[in-house]
Amino acid sequence: MSVRELVVLGSSSAVPTKRRNHNGYFLRWDDHGVLFDPGEGTQRQMRHAGLSAHDITRICITHFHGDHSLGLPGVVQRIARDRVEHTVRAAFPAAGAAYWERLRHATAFGDTGVIAEQPVDGLGACPLDGDGLRITALPLDHRMPTYGYRLQEPDARRMLPERLAALGVSGPDIGRLQREGRLEGPGGRTVTLEECSVPRPGQSMAFVMDTGECDNAVRLAQDADMLVIESTYLDSEERLAADYRHLTAGQAGRIAARARARLLVLTHISERYEAGDEPRFVEQAAARFDGPVVLAQDLDRIGVPKRRS
Amino acid sequence: MSVRELVVLGSSSAVPTKRRNHNGYFLRWDDHGVLFDPGEGTQRQMRHAGLSAHDITRICITHFHGDHSLGLPGVVQRIARDRVEHTVRAAFPAAGAAYWERLRHATAFGDTGVIAEQPVDGLGACPLDGDGLRITALPLDHRMPTYGYRLQEPDARRMLPERLAALGVSGPDIGRLQREGRLEGPGGRTVTLEECSVPRPGQSMAFVMDTGECDNAVRLAQDADMLVIESTYLDSEERLAADYRHLTAGQAGRIAARARARLLVLTHISERYEAGDEPRFVEQAAARFDGPVVLAQDLDRIGVPKRRS
Repeated sequence: MSVRELVVLGSSSAVPTKRRNHNGYFLRWDDHGVLFDPGEGTQRQMRHAGLSAHDITRICITHFHGDHSLGLPGVVQRIARDRVEHTVRAAFPAAGAAYWERLRHATAFGDTGVIAEQPVDGLGACPLDGDGLRITALPLDHRMPTYGYRLQEPDARRMLPERLAALGVSGPDIGRLQREGRLEGPGGRTVTLEECSVPRPGQSMAFVMDTGECDNAVRLAQDADMLVIESTYLDSEERLAADYRHLTAGQAGRIAARARARLLVLTHISERYEAGDEPRFVEQAAARFDGPVVLAQDLDRIGVPKRRS
Repeated sequence: MSVRELVVLGSSSAVPTKRRNHNGYFLRWDDHGVLFDPGEGTQRQMRHAGLSAHDITRICITHFHGDHSLGLPGVVQRIARDRVEHTVRAAFPAAGAAYWERLRHATAFGDTGVIAEQPVDGLGACPLDGDGLRITALPLDHRMPTYGYRLQEPDARRMLPERLAALGVSGPDIGRLQREGRLEGPGGRTVTLEECSVPRPGQSMAFVMDTGECDNAVRLAQDADMLVIESTYLDSEERLAADYRHLTAGQAGRIAARARARLLVLTHISERYEAGDEPRFVEQAAARFDGPVVLAQDLDRIGVPKRRS
């Protein structure tokens, strides 16, 4: 059974708190597992979440501040120790290659060479395609080179069994119709793919952090089924957010609204806020965005919404 | 009030488990705080233990395997972020200087320059003296260059108020007697320090990991009030311990017995053991060592035994 869900490994910005570990997110997407921004302690949070190093097929790093990447050495070393055999492709800002190198080889361990580096640069796509997965990247507006990511399933069509039966198409002809778009049915009538199927929009997920409000955040999140976005501050700290190039809850909501995203997941919460402040994150985002809003908690499992009909 | 205690931040070897974080130990010693071997997640474990970056005055790294040092970047960056103003002197094996550099500057942060590096080499003392603290280091027997540490308070003498009164020594003369060893008392009688005081043996703590059984482990632990020592395996895994240069519980007990240590703290437990196995660590060490034995649990606070009389 295919599962598409976000597992929140950590949700704090900058420093861990008693309730929130440093950032870290695992996206299970059918046979893939994409680890985004492993902060310190991700290795242990994965254990708490019942995830193993074998579940990881991709790693995406937005930038090299510690709360987004200090868990990388533990994950890399765990992949080697646990003898993961498949290639794990890892994207990160090319401008941060020196930090990547330090984290990749942080301490002595028996390396196995399954990590494939995919530095991301310029405005181009992030080269994490392949194995049925398409991930693109766009630069964001932070205090150091930072990229947001978008995972996009290609659009396809859903076949309609009752239409196929009515038109007399069955067996291997169904696959041929899908591949070729048309075929000659019983009685010489031409049958087209369009009349036997309906569009099946590809699902998508966007991962946006850390950044000030910017158009690329909207581009990454355009029509996304799930938008996971930093919301370091409440709107009362808008000035602070501007100074440090972060988002407030209201700004995150506005990005989601502009992009027509479906489910908004707020995370990367500043340690300054107490548990009692948390409902206001959702309220302030919901004031701008009329879809569902979730404030991430550590070890939450958040399903990708069902496919658009 | 002076406090001397060990705070266990983590107690697992190699990989964290649900119950045990990667290694990490904080020794509070009067005004000093010595952080030993910060594994991944130490920053957050300190928060759980109520410790702050300001509490750290020394860092001692035994070696650069990840479970003993991947928490260093988080600690170093936290010291900077929290604006610690005092110098934090950090000892580590000189042969691991390349790893130190990677961890010290792992990701981008606003550095403050209060970390003073003290690489340890050869057989000599570890240059962490000063501010009333004496820390020495000796090489151990592991798969990479590794040093154990010993913290030693100098021996002194405890003054006896009733003897001072009987011999007519009071006020500033007491300090002079302590400094000079003798003085002329009332009636011209020479008063000596020895007749007004008793020896006060300095307290000591030894930190021994990772290592196979070796004489330097015994030297570090000689007459120590507290010996914190790795005990990765039970005696049934003695062969594995030898292969990886680790200790079994029984070997740790034998080192404590040879050294005549007072309190034995076992830690650095392999993930292979379940909670139900843990009493056997204490039993196997106690079969060789007749002092008290404690198996460390995360967030334990273990007091240094009262001074020897």
